Amino acid sequence: MAGTVTVPGSSVPSTPLLKDELDIVIPTIRNLDFLEMWRPFFQPYHLIIVQDGDPSKVIKVPEGFDYELYNRNDINRILGPKASCISFKDSACRCFGYMVSKKKYVFTIDDDCFVAKDPSGKDINALEQHIKNLLSPSTPFFFNTLYDPYREGADFVRGYPFSLREGAPTAVSHGLWLNIPDYDAPTQMVKPRERNSRYVDAVLTIPKGTLFPMCGMNLAFDRQLIGPAMYFGLMGDGQPIGRYDDMWAGWCVKVICDHLSLGVKTGLPYLWHSKASNPFLNLKKEYKGIFWQEDIIPFFQNASLSKECDTVQKCYISLSEQVKEKLGKIDPYFVKLADAMVTWIEAWDELNPSDTVVAAGNGKAAAK
Amino acid sequence: MAGTVTVPGSSVPSTPLLKDELDIVIPTIRNLDFLEMWRPFFQPYHLIIVQDGDPSKVIKVPEGFDYELYNRNDINRILGPKASCISFKDSACRCFGYMVSKKKYVFTIDDDCFVAKDPSGKDINALEQHIKNLLSPSTPFFFNTLYDPYREGADFVRGYPFSLREGAPTAVSHGLWLNIPDYDAPTQMVKPRERNSRYVDAVLTIPKGTLFPMCGMNLAFDRQLIGPAMYFGLMGDGQPIGRYDDMWAGWCVKVICDHLSLGVKTGLPYLWHSKASNPFLNLKKEYKGIFWQEDIIPFFQNASLSKECDTVQKCYISLSEQVKEKLGKIDPYFVKLADAMVTWIEAWDELNPSDTVVAAGNGKAAAK
Repeated sequence: MAGTVTVPGSSVPSTPLLKDELDIVIPTIRNLDFLEMWRPFFQPYHLIIVQDGDPSKVIKVPEGFDYELYNRNDINRILGPKASCISFKDSACRCFGYMVSKKKYVFTIDDDCFVAKDPSGKDINALEQHIKNLLSPSTPFFFNTLYDPYREGADFVRGYPFSLREGAPTAVSHGLWLNIPDYDAPTQMVKPRERNSRYVDAVLTIPKGTLFPMCGMNLAFDRQLIGPAMYFGLMGDGQPIGRYDDMWAGWCVKVICDHLSLGVKTGLPYLWHSKASNPFLNLKKEYKGIFWQEDIIPFFQNASLSKECDTVQKCYISLSEQVKEKLGKIDPYFVKLADAMVTWIEAWDELNPSDTVVAAGNGKAAAK
Repeated sequence: MAGTVTVPGSSVPSTPLLKDELDIVIPTIRNLDFLEMWRPFFQPYHLIIVQDGDPSKVIKVPEGFDYELYNRNDINRILGPKASCISFKDSACRCFGYMVSKKKYVFTIDDDCFVAKDPSGKDINALEQHIKNLLSPSTPFFFNTLYDPYREGADFVRGYPFSLREGAPTAVSHGLWLNIPDYDAPTQMVKPRERNSRYVDAVLTIPKGTLFPMCGMNLAFDRQLIGPAMYFGLMGDGQPIGRYDDMWAGWCVKVICDHLSLGVKTGLPYLWHSKASNPFLNLKKEYKGIFWQEDIIPFFQNASLSKECDTVQKCYISLSEQVKEKLGKIDPYFVKLADAMVTWIEAWDELNPSDTVVAAGNGKAAAK
């Protein structure tokens, strides 16, 4: 990357990329010892810690990190009645951190995720790779068979239209996991010993019109481009469903990115996901989602946004109306969720008054 | 793969997969010395060699290979006036081999492509990987972030709808190239020294609704599912364009696969592409294609096939009508091409009388 000097023998850039333009958002219920392993990569950045569960519990953060921490009392105080849109006892609470961030970029990570190694044995600086992904364009309109054409040593292959080679601005970078794969409860139960050891050295754009299962474990995005759509829904305490927070966000985000000609990438970087969550507990959280998603996905595949939806906020409000009308028939939960989507946008705009004028992507990105 | 016994220390299966159900089609103008390197992998299979250029030239094939060879005289004799649809002095002539094959599967390869090595240094059996790709389902309707879910050690991730986990039958397996990447003339000229050394250990399905640049260098397909759409167009001698033969086939094939709920995969296997073709000569062949493709791609993105198009042949005839009507306005070449598309189908059906009743894919595939 331009402007970065890498210290020989180290994968830590001497000037961290986007140091003052990126927040790391971490939802947690425990002490953040996992940060020790990330210290070389995360310490230059500001952390936003969203404490879930009992607010009287004290979360220890290793020394030397610059952070702000919000517990449920803080969320209630800051958002007032609008705090109802932020989930409790579920990692979906992390999206509160997206809302209070004042930076252009956000990286979010789970506290059971550690630094992975690439096939050469080198520690992977996941954050640096996410930043590279976000700062280079995406290619949502046509598929490049050699993967990311903006990567060093790669390009567009024969037959790739020249008019599309500027690409589109990248809104989302979705990273993957070595060791414990992100499986649902039934798959966890059927394959309790399966581990992901395959390092696929690629970043690719998810084509326009294609939905994907977005996982919140290892995720970065451009708040200015897509932030208001990064709502993790109503999950956990008092809700009939869990473990669909990131999926919900991913469906909404992808539909809106497609409408606004923004790109979504997946692939590198990997991190090390250390432990599988309890499949029995997961099944309890997921089971409604497992059958609801059979209707939700066709709903999002067919959702349409009008020309008037030229900001993320307008797109999101339009989606909330469609959710209420179409998914509300499946279960009253979706009526509540649709209302929460509106509340989320109101809260976002209250905390981010200048963001509402962000123009929609126009399909143009900085040239390679 | 079921039914395969691998000899320890060797990557050659003792019982070659689909030995009697697959033909290898090779277009060439020279002696086929390149087959020596492929002998361990190709020798059990039948070869169909399509000799381009001067039919009086004798093409030498290394001993021990089982093959049939067709030169221009043979093509003219077999097809009569319909031979006009088969290109001359262009590797597009290879599609004649698809037509005369009597097998269910075809693998086609260029004669400047050699065996590549995987990162462990082992020779890659490209054909075996293509067969695996073709025999396992595709996932065109939703994106799986851990790539091919049917591969050992992988599965569908959380949030992947269970109703889609049977996948769709795979019609095409598109392989990649190490060393010389498949670049167009302008990119070759700008980056004369670029080599592809990145081995991406993945196979993925190109999502429904997304077009891709299909390269004919390293390509396998199911003739019964998609054969009649694998027409490489009018290129080379007497035509205003070259080097778009495989692209043309790829656009048609993808639109038809999407309509019939068939899958197209890309990724592994790699082969070693030994030498770059002459960029100046390539530019001469490509330059009309480079601007035509700016119209052709939106044309294919918007092409629609009616419910009545329930066989590949009917889809292809419908596409030919749309080509004539819409692309004919760009250049009279497309009127000629549209006519050749019809001739191709007539010739195909003449040589493959029983194929015309092949039913369209129905979105169901063998379970994992």
